[in-house]
Amino acid sequence: MSGTDLHVIIPAGGAGTRLWPLSRRSRPKFLLDLTGSGRTLLQATVDRLTPRAASITIVTGAAHRGAVLGQLPEFNGHPDRHLVIEPSGRDSMPAIGLATYLVRRRYGADAVVGSFAADHLITGPDVFLAALDTAVGAAREGYVTTIGITPTEPSTAYGYIHPGADLPGVPGAQLVTSFVEKPDPATARRHLGEGYVWNAGMFVMRAGVLTDHLARLRPDLDRGLERIANAWGGHGEQAVLEETWPTLERIAIDHAVAEPVAAQGGVAVVPTGAGIGWTDLGDFRALGEVRGEVGDALRVDAPGTVVYTETGQRVVLVGVEDLVVVTTPDAVLVTRDAAAQEVKRAVDALGEEGRSDLL
Amino acid sequence: MSGTDLHVIIPAGGAGTRLWPLSRRSRPKFLLDLTGSGRTLLQATVDRLTPRAASITIVTGAAHRGAVLGQLPEFNGHPDRHLVIEPSGRDSMPAIGLATYLVRRRYGADAVVGSFAADHLITGPDVFLAALDTAVGAAREGYVTTIGITPTEPSTAYGYIHPGADLPGVPGAQLVTSFVEKPDPATARRHLGEGYVWNAGMFVMRAGVLTDHLARLRPDLDRGLERIANAWGGHGEQAVLEETWPTLERIAIDHAVAEPVAAQGGVAVVPTGAGIGWTDLGDFRALGEVRGEVGDALRVDAPGTVVYTETGQRVVLVGVEDLVVVTTPDAVLVTRDAAAQEVKRAVDALGEEGRSDLL
Repeated sequence: MSGTDLHVIIPAGGAGTRLWPLSRRSRPKFLLDLTGSGRTLLQATVDRLTPRAASITIVTGAAHRGAVLGQLPEFNGHPDRHLVIEPSGRDSMPAIGLATYLVRRRYGADAVVGSFAADHLITGPDVFLAALDTAVGAAREGYVTTIGITPTEPSTAYGYIHPGADLPGVPGAQLVTSFVEKPDPATARRHLGEGYVWNAGMFVMRAGVLTDHLARLRPDLDRGLERIANAWGGHGEQAVLEETWPTLERIAIDHAVAEPVAAQGGVAVVPTGAGIGWTDLGDFRALGEVRGEVGDALRVDAPGTVVYTETGQRVVLVGVEDLVVVTTPDAVLVTRDAAAQEVKRAVDALGEEGRSDLL
Repeated sequence: MSGTDLHVIIPAGGAGTRLWPLSRRSRPKFLLDLTGSGRTLLQATVDRLTPRAASITIVTGAAHRGAVLGQLPEFNGHPDRHLVIEPSGRDSMPAIGLATYLVRRRYGADAVVGSFAADHLITGPDVFLAALDTAVGAAREGYVTTIGITPTEPSTAYGYIHPGADLPGVPGAQLVTSFVEKPDPATARRHLGEGYVWNAGMFVMRAGVLTDHLARLRPDLDRGLERIANAWGGHGEQAVLEETWPTLERIAIDHAVAEPVAAQGGVAVVPTGAGIGWTDLGDFRALGEVRGEVGDALRVDAPGTVVYTETGQRVVLVGVEDLVVVTTPDAVLVTRDAAAQEVKRAVDALGEEGRSDLL
């Protein structure tokens, strides 16, 4: 199958705290070449999807407009490469929704849209594209279709998807029984034994299917997005956007659509084959596993430590365990995996101190 | 009493590993202004002793000659300020011994010498000088006299001295029963209850008393030092020094003289009064206690952590305990108090890698 009528949506947001101090509010993860490949995560996401993309729409904040266009100059003026600036971050449903309503207007309600995070990593693009083609097939059948990552370990960092019966007529796709939140370790091990897959936040569906679900489940959101899409490209675009956007419900696509529609039998999942090599690069340990050691570290009796240094400083770890040490020209972070969520508190505290240069 | 016939000896050596990466082989602790006072530890040591010093002799390595003279230009050409360059480090007895034999030759066998580390800190100099004056009195009576620091806590980082009977005729001085090695915590607590004091490595005695002890206890060392001292200032000085020095026994003054002479009733101790504020600045925690926080650190759930940063990098500690974090322009150290001795292993490993720039 060609898959060439896929209209790719890439919401590119994020507070930049999970990989602080590498990532910052002013340069979130997707703008960084974290893997040392020569391409940023956003560029790599575009590269990966381009073989199947009839169009690509990136949705990002005004602060990142210049950086995104600098990295992807083809998004300036190309008929099928669109950059949508959201006035503020209102979670994934408004962002993906606006792009979807714009695709529907430009390309029709039967156009298949697919939404993919801007800052995930996939080392097996062919495995990914094979799953994507299957997902497009399920989307054509009217399903909200997600690509589920076949787990390599009982991770507690990801939500899980429970696949059910095979989808008739679409080999490789199954109905989704339910979405489940990030589990504790015992539950994660049980999920693995029961064939659950990781929720990577990838959703593929006909534009009209998503807008119909929204009209039914979230009518206010549907009306707001419809109003903005109708004004798009005209005189009133900016005024309508700025007036309407702040009124839109702040909600994730998982909660707004995927979960309720799954409960009604309308969501399919395509489990990926082995070797997709997907990670959300959600913390420095994940980054270290992908990238290996970055920088110049010496360890004496320092098991389980992860070092990422951008500065050329020799990092010496002596008699410490399971630490994460990151150095940048203006900051040094020393933490533990288990404390990664607390790094956000530190970044907030820096903000309260007025150190916006470090955020 | 005047005390002005005290001939001060300052052995200024050290591998620079205990406070690495602040201290280096090329800039050991004594050359650094670790306390932020504007004076290096060596300068502060000279400052502290000058009120009582008839002469001062600094013994250091060739590598530090320029730095020492840069910090203390009066040691270049002054009749009573002497700089002795030892060809290699052979522990404290040869260094203090050579200076003592030179004092004896210049000022006579009755001259009182006192040896004091170049890299310790004393925040109560008047308390120190009062103890020193008492020690000079005991030295005049023929005793090898040490100044013992009245402990403020049951430290396991220092050796202890067991004071015995009062010394007749010298109020404030006691005979030394024994010297004991660094204790475990329980032993340290017991020592405190029994009136033990810390061994700060300060020794005061008549020059002739020390040379007589050496002639008796370490005759080879006595002969070697005598030979060097006799050649000093003449044509053959350098040749005799370079030929003889490597043959001298590598031994500390504690083991060569203080311990055996104490066993024979020949060592006195002057316990200091309260408020001397002595520390050997042996690790970063000790430095932190004296100096407070150095640099720009933010802690979230990070109790017991010590930060010393020279770089202006903001150090952020999240969810870690009891760590020591030190940043310099070319190195970052992350360790624990308990691992401080292992830092030497890391520095050795850097040497094996050829990173002599970091030693």
